[in-house]
Amino acid sequence: MLRIITQQADVSAELQRICDRTHDEQVLHKEATVREVLQAVKRQGDKAVLHYTAEFDHQTLKPEELRVSGSELDAAYQQVSKELLQAIRLACRQIEAFHRQRVPKSWIHFGDDEVVLGKRYTPVDRAGLYVPGGRAAYPSTVLMNGIPAKVAGVPRVVMVTPPGVGKAINPAVLVAAQEAGVQEIYRVGGAQAVAALAYGTETIPKVNVITGPGNIYVTLAKKLVYGTVGIDSLAGPSEVLIIADEHANPVNVAADLLAQAEHDPMAAAILLTTDAALAKNVQVAVERQLVDHPRRIDTEKAIAHYGLIVVVESLEAAAELSNEFAPEHLELEIKDPWSLIPQIRHAGAIFLGYSTPEAVGDYLAGPNHTLPTSGAARYASALGVETFLKHSSIIQYSQTALQKVAGAINVLATAEGLPSHADSVRRRIQQEE
Amino acid sequence: MLRIITQQADVSAELQRICDRTHDEQVLHKEATVREVLQAVKRQGDKAVLHYTAEFDHQTLKPEELRVSGSELDAAYQQVSKELLQAIRLACRQIEAFHRQRVPKSWIHFGDDEVVLGKRYTPVDRAGLYVPGGRAAYPSTVLMNGIPAKVAGVPRVVMVTPPGVGKAINPAVLVAAQEAGVQEIYRVGGAQAVAALAYGTETIPKVNVITGPGNIYVTLAKKLVYGTVGIDSLAGPSEVLIIADEHANPVNVAADLLAQAEHDPMAAAILLTTDAALAKNVQVAVERQLVDHPRRIDTEKAIAHYGLIVVVESLEAAAELSNEFAPEHLELEIKDPWSLIPQIRHAGAIFLGYSTPEAVGDYLAGPNHTLPTSGAARYASALGVETFLKHSSIIQYSQTALQKVAGAINVLATAEGLPSHADSVRRRIQQEE
Repeated sequence: MLRIITQQADVSAELQRICDRTHDEQVLHKEATVREVLQAVKRQGDKAVLHYTAEFDHQTLKPEELRVSGSELDAAYQQVSKELLQAIRLACRQIEAFHRQRVPKSWIHFGDDEVVLGKRYTPVDRAGLYVPGGRAAYPSTVLMNGIPAKVAGVPRVVMVTPPGVGKAINPAVLVAAQEAGVQEIYRVGGAQAVAALAYGTETIPKVNVITGPGNIYVTLAKKLVYGTVGIDSLAGPSEVLIIADEHANPVNVAADLLAQAEHDPMAAAILLTTDAALAKNVQVAVERQLVDHPRRIDTEKAIAHYGLIVVVESLEAAAELSNEFAPEHLELEIKDPWSLIPQIRHAGAIFLGYSTPEAVGDYLAGPNHTLPTSGAARYASALGVETFLKHSSIIQYSQTALQKVAGAINVLATAEGLPSHADSVRRRIQQEE
Repeated sequence: MLRIITQQADVSAELQRICDRTHDEQVLHKEATVREVLQAVKRQGDKAVLHYTAEFDHQTLKPEELRVSGSELDAAYQQVSKELLQAIRLACRQIEAFHRQRVPKSWIHFGDDEVVLGKRYTPVDRAGLYVPGGRAAYPSTVLMNGIPAKVAGVPRVVMVTPPGVGKAINPAVLVAAQEAGVQEIYRVGGAQAVAALAYGTETIPKVNVITGPGNIYVTLAKKLVYGTVGIDSLAGPSEVLIIADEHANPVNVAADLLAQAEHDPMAAAILLTTDAALAKNVQVAVERQLVDHPRRIDTEKAIAHYGLIVVVESLEAAAELSNEFAPEHLELEIKDPWSLIPQIRHAGAIFLGYSTPEAVGDYLAGPNHTLPTSGAARYASALGVETFLKHSSIIQYSQTALQKVAGAINVLATAEGLPSHADSVRRRIQQEE
């Protein structure tokens, strides 16, 4: 049963508890396992990759089976329906169109003081996309990671995903990869896949950036290899926070809460509403929609542990509580959602109005669905083209320009006790005179 | 003595060795210490902060002494010369001007299909700047971290820096902080400072992003708290790679190499030149400039262990080796530096021509001097305004717009086995009919 509390209760403590739900006491223990996997793959390459794939994924592969073959890639198209292919292509187009907007561009400024300054953007050489397998084998994940890499102009994009029963990869995942422009796919998951991408093996290339969600082992591995490679973020279980007024439809709100809860027993689904009647009606609708839900047990777990309805005194109070939580997804199912936006400080993505369920953003509106979780929206943003770009600062001074700042540099370098810094400027000035 | 090798030698292996110079076998041991400090500060707050400050920095503080007082801030202005204040102000103006260019702006697109999409940028609520003490107490570090936070519009910026002898903080650091708009400064350094910023204590506020360089303990602490807060990067020892032709001045090139080496015995200074005579002349000039260098011992260590001159066959070969190394700082001391730029794929900052020593960028050209080290330029960039900003995706669909994509979402959600995702759209469509 989805709990209802009022703002008189200690709402902040409840939200904090839900936000902190990923703090796993066993993380340190798991970290030791992950370190071992990373070290083994670093030292032994493919051999260790195959060993852990047999141990954790129960699939015995030969080295030459690691890479998904061209014929398997072709065959995948025969295994998905025409409707699914069309839907993937629609999503592709819209995601690409959104990501092509406002891509950072190189710029250069020629000052009239003989100083040239600028920034030059370049893509990383190689990107590695992690795509989970099993229950969470989502073609949408492939699109949301692959398309930004493609738009960034990354020359080599590789994908890793764990093999399922009979070494197979979900055909919808293989089709989505190809539609996103990714042809190089390896049948490996878990910490061993992250290690292979970070260090390289005989078969799998070392990349510069690893993106994509995964379980706790994948996330720990990404944290540990950060610094050797770049990563997108440390993804936790998904979450939605809905702010709704008395005009919201309780059946729709309930479906939105369940659309989050059905992801994972650790998912969080929170409703803040000004209307006590809506709260009650959503509670009832959730129960009703759970009755014949195909993922009932896990979904109920999420609702029971990390589901919450708070009856708030005002929309302003709701916005303030939402900022405390800093949700991954925020739905504003209120009459005038734009009027509340200025009060929202932290949210991965904001869905406005009664006709914008999160699902539209999950699949095809265009913005990325890889978003900061567990309060990370306080400092982080959606995965994007920027994840696959970096820039170099550009600086050029003429001798005349250098002359003008030589005195100031000398004073600063001397204050910092760095004589060669001062020297490197002074020698150039003296030579001019 | 700065070694000279030719391209016939195994240059790649040498560059790799220098690039990997931070891989410390003792890191795991140090990590255990850092974990202990983090846990203690998380549990005991100020008490632990003061304990470790006494233990590591040998300064016994009372809680009320943690924050630098207003009178100390005022007094700092009396302790710096007029010339230094002017130089700090010049640097401030130029750094701010550069960082105000191309700050990402919120945007919104109203489609004629009743779809509204956009991105809204907001600053983090609180940022924490780490500024090292001791030998590396640099006012320029304060400016390079504080100004981007200010330009981003962060409402509360706090700074931490370890207390020196007599609990004092370098007055130039205090003046630079105030010039950059930072008034809230705490006398604490090391892993305990990072912990205080990540978790908050009775005195020191919890922040959302921690930036700034530090020793290995600070860097490990930043890596461990990443995910609880955002961080700028994991900074390693500094490095320069210079590509020079026969027209470069060997005395200047030598000064530039030493300007890097004088930072740290772990700093790297590499010259790639097409001219064997220049190589020899630079080698001699480095020896000569080292003779009465005030930091001779440490600087010589850096030159001996992580200094290198490679005589290359062409500028193209030099560019390729530079890309392998992915230097933090790249100087192009060649006749036509612009013609080589297209071949440079990875570099934190690029200094063009004979009159642009790195020092000009270290202090006041404007671009940030906090740059990716140890090969991180393959995927990372300078610290910037973006470090203190995040964005929320904005999505609004009308019922008509939702209707048009409902079929595709249904197909995708069904393929992914997420019935409530499909349901959340279908219910809204049915209600319209």
